[in-house]
Amino acid sequence: MSIALTTHERYMRIALAEAAAAAAEGEVPIGAVVVGPDGSILGRGHNLTERLADVTAHAEMQAITAAAATLGGKYLDDCTLYVTVEPCLMCAGAIGWSHLKCIVIGTPDPKGGYLAATSRSPFHPRATVVEGVLADDCRALMQAFFRSRRR
Amino acid sequence: MSIALTTHERYMRIALAEAAAAAAEGEVPIGAVVVGPDGSILGRGHNLTERLADVTAHAEMQAITAAAATLGGKYLDDCTLYVTVEPCLMCAGAIGWSHLKCIVIGTPDPKGGYLAATSRSPFHPRATVVEGVLADDCRALMQAFFRSRRR
Repeated sequence: MSIALTTHERYMRIALAEAAAAAAEGEVPIGAVVVGPDGSILGRGHNLTERLADVTAHAEMQAITAAAATLGGKYLDDCTLYVTVEPCLMCAGAIGWSHLKCIVIGTPDPKGGYLAATSRSPFHPRATVVEGVLADDCRALMQAFFRSRRR
Repeated sequence: MSIALTTHERYMRIALAEAAAAAAEGEVPIGAVVVGPDGSILGRGHNLTERLADVTAHAEMQAITAAAATLGGKYLDDCTLYVTVEPCLMCAGAIGWSHLKCIVIGTPDPKGGYLAATSRSPFHPRATVVEGVLADDCRALMQAFFRSRRR
């Protein structure tokens, strides 16, 4: 029996492909995609902190910067971000500045995620948050990565 | 009577020069400098969110990325960041990831600063924070900028 993917799951699959690309490059496997109101992909990216030797090169930062470049403007008001792992504080702040309207998260990050570190939501006041989309796949990528690192 | 500048004030002057450059370009006047343990300037930058049309292009992000490029490594463990205005959540997160050891802040930002948004410090556990260095100058640049914008 084939299971039809919801719209959220379809885009999370693309974020997961980015995360897999990160893993293949030895980067922490997190991927992100920014989708416009018409469903087009405006920006995508994965973690590049090792390759760029830059702690700011998280997947969400890449995707947000790419989407702004695509649009030619810095605000992503009616856009949705898909990210495989709960954003950290830095990325949550960037998501807030970008005015992203909807944030769809794969798997939570109870230790490094923004929820543990903020007393109020860093996102835009009108933004909605969707959690748990393809959470098992998102988490599995992370677990496999860190398991292989510990070996 | 000349007043000798402390080390913190000397570097904050450089951050202020960056902030003034931002103001001259119509950017929010915030500047940042990363200084190595030997006192050398490893990275400096100012707000470029308008020119780059990128919400992530804050002064601190520019300075951190520049310093990592100078060092050829992503961690700034024994370095100090001078920034004219209290960092936002995004920059505070980036400062944490970078392992910056000391954060020297000019003027607070009670509305947009990280202190209002976080329940615990986003900085590295071993980092120290110094506040109020050349605060009047740092604040004056911001006030002049926004005053001119309201006219």
